[in-house]
Amino acid sequence: MDEFELIDRIFHRPEDRPPWVEVGIGDDGAVLQPPLGKQTVVVMDTLVNGTHFLNSQPADSVGHRALAVNLSDVVAMGASPRWATLSLTLPELDRDWVNAFATGFFQLADEHHVSLIGGDTTAGPLTVSVTVGGEVEPGRVLRRGGARPGDLIFLTGRIGGAATALSSTQAYSNPVLQKALLYPQPPVALGQVLGSFAHSAIDLSDGLLADLGHVLKASGNRGAQIEADQVPLFEASVALLGASRALELALGGGDDYELCFTAPEDRCREIDAIGSQLEREIFCIGRVTEKGGCRVNGGQVNLKELSPGYQHTWQV
Amino acid sequence: MDEFELIDRIFHRPEDRPPWVEVGIGDDGAVLQPPLGKQTVVVMDTLVNGTHFLNSQPADSVGHRALAVNLSDVVAMGASPRWATLSLTLPELDRDWVNAFATGFFQLADEHHVSLIGGDTTAGPLTVSVTVGGEVEPGRVLRRGGARPGDLIFLTGRIGGAATALSSTQAYSNPVLQKALLYPQPPVALGQVLGSFAHSAIDLSDGLLADLGHVLKASGNRGAQIEADQVPLFEASVALLGASRALELALGGGDDYELCFTAPEDRCREIDAIGSQLEREIFCIGRVTEKGGCRVNGGQVNLKELSPGYQHTWQV
Repeated sequence: MDEFELIDRIFHRPEDRPPWVEVGIGDDGAVLQPPLGKQTVVVMDTLVNGTHFLNSQPADSVGHRALAVNLSDVVAMGASPRWATLSLTLPELDRDWVNAFATGFFQLADEHHVSLIGGDTTAGPLTVSVTVGGEVEPGRVLRRGGARPGDLIFLTGRIGGAATALSSTQAYSNPVLQKALLYPQPPVALGQVLGSFAHSAIDLSDGLLADLGHVLKASGNRGAQIEADQVPLFEASVALLGASRALELALGGGDDYELCFTAPEDRCREIDAIGSQLEREIFCIGRVTEKGGCRVNGGQVNLKELSPGYQHTWQV
Repeated sequence: MDEFELIDRIFHRPEDRPPWVEVGIGDDGAVLQPPLGKQTVVVMDTLVNGTHFLNSQPADSVGHRALAVNLSDVVAMGASPRWATLSLTLPELDRDWVNAFATGFFQLADEHHVSLIGGDTTAGPLTVSVTVGGEVEPGRVLRRGGARPGDLIFLTGRIGGAATALSSTQAYSNPVLQKALLYPQPPVALGQVLGSFAHSAIDLSDGLLADLGHVLKASGNRGAQIEADQVPLFEASVALLGASRALELALGGGDDYELCFTAPEDRCREIDAIGSQLEREIFCIGRVTEKGGCRVNGGQVNLKELSPGYQHTWQV
């Protein structure tokens, strides 16, 4: 058995194989029984050392985030994740690092009943590619292009925490902000119900204004009115940076992996109830307009200083 | 539109979307209608610059191989490929390189009716991850562990050509050998029928003896008798290196992306007929035995000199 096989064993947990996985890790491919009457959602995202994370970041956070950034994409389609494949490219065979990586990956996977069904381990510069498959009922699929004028705009959690953590050593040492950066928690449980009331959704990876911009453009060049004082900030961000800068990082910072969705006003009570049921704060921050770009009402926002977000927009 | 969006456009071909792809590239995820009554096969393989290919290699070959190494895995499961996701990590935005890469990728994808449904473009060291999904009839899935004593051992094409091309500049300049290395042609059409007569299959990426060894081990520690003079070599390999060295590279060289499968002797005539029908040479090279390891009868093979093959054995 070579060193790579030892590494591979870390990811091989045959005892966890659900009944719909006919063949899991260990053959040329995995074989799955697709659920009857459902459609399949497939997403793929890659994290590169030096671009999406740093060597100094704990390995379990890299494992957590590699899965989390894909889960948020699945949920943004109105779907529920079921399986993942993982391709791990490693510069050296550091078993401690891989063990910690796997701990972070599996903790999040187990929490949401996502099965690792296969992948690949190769030698090279540290890179993690993950593909996640999910399921959705036909007719419940959410698109970026479904927003309608008059829709309210919602967020599934507070934003700007990750960007604040990256802004200074002091901010990084704050446990709430650090957790937002290193262990984002996409609203996976929402995936099952989102398609029953939302018109459109997107996950927040590049910053609210950039991502909402994709929704508005895809929905026929709609506009939006955002109420600055409704944007849910982290208390620690405001305390450290002041309300104005905290708002800027919330609007343009990225790496939130929360969802932004739009829904008609008459579903507000239902959305509140679902948030309570899932123990997830859902915030209404504004409204979709016929046209006119995206405007932020109130607050002193210097848009020119916003970071541009990661440039990886060809997403699935 | 930023540079990454321009790159992404190269991969966006909405006019090619088949009816079972409800949502393709351009949203948070792809949405597929799974075929009724079929199981899903998922495979994932990564190619890293410097490990699996070289900078000097033509970009269209990198695109071709990134897909080909996954197609051979799908076929080895007795399945037919249907869709792919592609994650491309690029050190710089070289549009000519990406255009050539896409040409190689799509030429092979189109030949086998495989749809690119999504992916990711990121900045970093040149790495290509591809996930391929396929379909298989329940009961037709082929495993590594299905070989039985008495089964004949077959290859779907000549082997050792890629390894010969890598052995010298003279060999690399031979067009047949270069093609075997840069543009391997996995036997995709066989995927539809293989499960009706074969007992086991594996794709040849690490070298015949290493890969056949996985089959024998997974099948209950079986043995094999290989007839050296039946192993199908490339004429150009024999001419350049002599029969003995050509055989060594065929047994241990790797990168063939042909299939090795085992089947009962009474299916021989059927297998011949299918080979003729698909215009694919299929060679019988030996037989599975009760036990006793893998023996090569005849030929002077110095196993110690065989290259170890790539070390990426945790495959799906």
